[in-house]
Amino acid sequence: MTVVKISEIGEFGLIGRLAALVGDNPPAELVIGIGDDCAVWQAGDQYLLGTTDTLVEGVHFLPGDAPWADLGWKALAVNVSDIAAMGGVPLFALVTLALPPETPVDTADALYEGLSACARDYELIVAGGDVVQAPQISVTVALIGRAQTRDGVPLLMRRDGARAGDVIAVTGHLGASAAGLRALRGGASPDDPLPRAHLRPDPPLAIAQAAARLGVTCAIDISDGLVQDIGHVCRASRLGAVLLATDIPVSPETTAAYPDDALRLAATGGEDYQILLASAAGVIAALNELHPEAVTVIGNMSDRRRGSVSILDRTGAEIKFPSPGWDHLARKPE
Amino acid sequence: MTVVKISEIGEFGLIGRLAALVGDNPPAELVIGIGDDCAVWQAGDQYLLGTTDTLVEGVHFLPGDAPWADLGWKALAVNVSDIAAMGGVPLFALVTLALPPETPVDTADALYEGLSACARDYELIVAGGDVVQAPQISVTVALIGRAQTRDGVPLLMRRDGARAGDVIAVTGHLGASAAGLRALRGGASPDDPLPRAHLRPDPPLAIAQAAARLGVTCAIDISDGLVQDIGHVCRASRLGAVLLATDIPVSPETTAAYPDDALRLAATGGEDYQILLASAAGVIAALNELHPEAVTVIGNMSDRRRGSVSILDRTGAEIKFPSPGWDHLARKPE
Repeated sequence: MTVVKISEIGEFGLIGRLAALVGDNPPAELVIGIGDDCAVWQAGDQYLLGTTDTLVEGVHFLPGDAPWADLGWKALAVNVSDIAAMGGVPLFALVTLALPPETPVDTADALYEGLSACARDYELIVAGGDVVQAPQISVTVALIGRAQTRDGVPLLMRRDGARAGDVIAVTGHLGASAAGLRALRGGASPDDPLPRAHLRPDPPLAIAQAAARLGVTCAIDISDGLVQDIGHVCRASRLGAVLLATDIPVSPETTAAYPDDALRLAATGGEDYQILLASAAGVIAALNELHPEAVTVIGNMSDRRRGSVSILDRTGAEIKFPSPGWDHLARKPE
Repeated sequence: MTVVKISEIGEFGLIGRLAALVGDNPPAELVIGIGDDCAVWQAGDQYLLGTTDTLVEGVHFLPGDAPWADLGWKALAVNVSDIAAMGGVPLFALVTLALPPETPVDTADALYEGLSACARDYELIVAGGDVVQAPQISVTVALIGRAQTRDGVPLLMRRDGARAGDVIAVTGHLGASAAGLRALRGGASPDDPLPRAHLRPDPPLAIAQAAARLGVTCAIDISDGLVQDIGHVCRASRLGAVLLATDIPVSPETTAAYPDDALRLAATGGEDYQILLASAAGVIAALNELHPEAVTVIGNMSDRRRGSVSILDRTGAEIKFPSPGWDHLARKPE
């Protein structure tokens, strides 16, 4: 009998199997189940959002790379990013800290301080959690939020909410997180600007909420890499995406530090925790009027080449990258 | 400089530090924060409950001890137990599966099947989650539920809801889980009754909900050990507890298998996931009329010896156990 390993089906294959096993016969209260940035659940007159993410020592971070306070911040911020991607309002977090008993108390204190600082900045509360023993440190956050509503209708941005002809726009700049990780590995200080972008992501929650209020119906956060994340939108919305490489807002610090690699880092590096939106051009323009230079248009959704992402250079030729982004469980390319 | 380790402050010391760091200035919506079985959050006309628990390979289970489907079941059931302890209704779960990429897909499928079976039995839905790479398998579940309400008032059972003179009662029988773990380690089949009690805990959700509707205001689930868990009630309610050893409902299978140790297993073994209630004697009697033999009275809450738990034998002499239950992070006794 052949044993099939997780690495052969990858992260998204595994999520698909979970969805298939648990997905039959959902109750009416479940508005969105597995497969978007958050689950959405109707509770009375509220639409609740739920998301969870984990950072594992040795996998998502190495002890030397990041001050513990930064890890606490990031463990919560990546969940805020998921709530932002739905256009929602974060409410309360449950935090699980797994750690070896010989961990210094100072380490846990620093982690909690970073977590607490992030909670204050995004006006949410750590309402509970769990501490467990494990061979290495990991932090799991489950974050509950609510959708904004208008006349009782939830203003949700979904992966399947794009339409052909929508423009694609992203908040902020891209590439600084992957560049920051590279700089850290090369010995840069955690306090330098590029490492900061990697260690303390700052999801654009207010801009995302404004987008949902303006009527944007499709968004995703850029966690695994722009190309891979927009691929999720393409598959969910059954459309194709065409991006213009020259329009991608590569972070200036990334271009300065790694000029030959900056576009690849911005397109596939991941962990920028910016938000990608797809909407009518007029809505995106209105968002930039409300929040000057909040978003940059980088392409269009198309009903051609459904499910695929094309990145074109100045001449119209397609640019190919070695990988679209991260799969957290797939066998890594050699 | 002396480095203080987590093992020196233990699980409850660490939780206290988290509570202190994040606990200032809570919003009005936070009804109960860190320190009960669930956090409680008022969202519109609903009172939401949130809880999270983790099972880690090599810490909470050994690969040889438990079929993977049982671990999936248990990872969810222990969270259902927290919702039951508050008298609530489970709604939806977020599941994080951490595992090495070389894990067989069959293992993940079996885990998900057990999880899914538990979700069906307790009429809740797995609405989302995360899969991450880690050096060993762990399952983290965050479970969201709602409180039952009457005339808009939440019917919550809290650790600090006991009054002097309340009787103390427990659902079901105790000791079978710890006895089952011992039997498993001794080579018993996972399908034998004692191992089943350890591997597939079955929290008495309907009885707990009925108790909350009858007006019981104090409960806790028995996860770490009866003596330790009732100690949490004593400290939160600023009362003492006196238990009669002969009234503790030791599971008959535990007495049969380990006659010399059965009382200790029932009093301090933990993981039975039964519910302990403190309430007026008449309310407990009414519960047993609705659900025959649902609960057994084992003692009283007292305003003497506040914060402490006494277990008395037939002669009125106090019985001392080597440990009240589990601290998941403390240095283990030699």
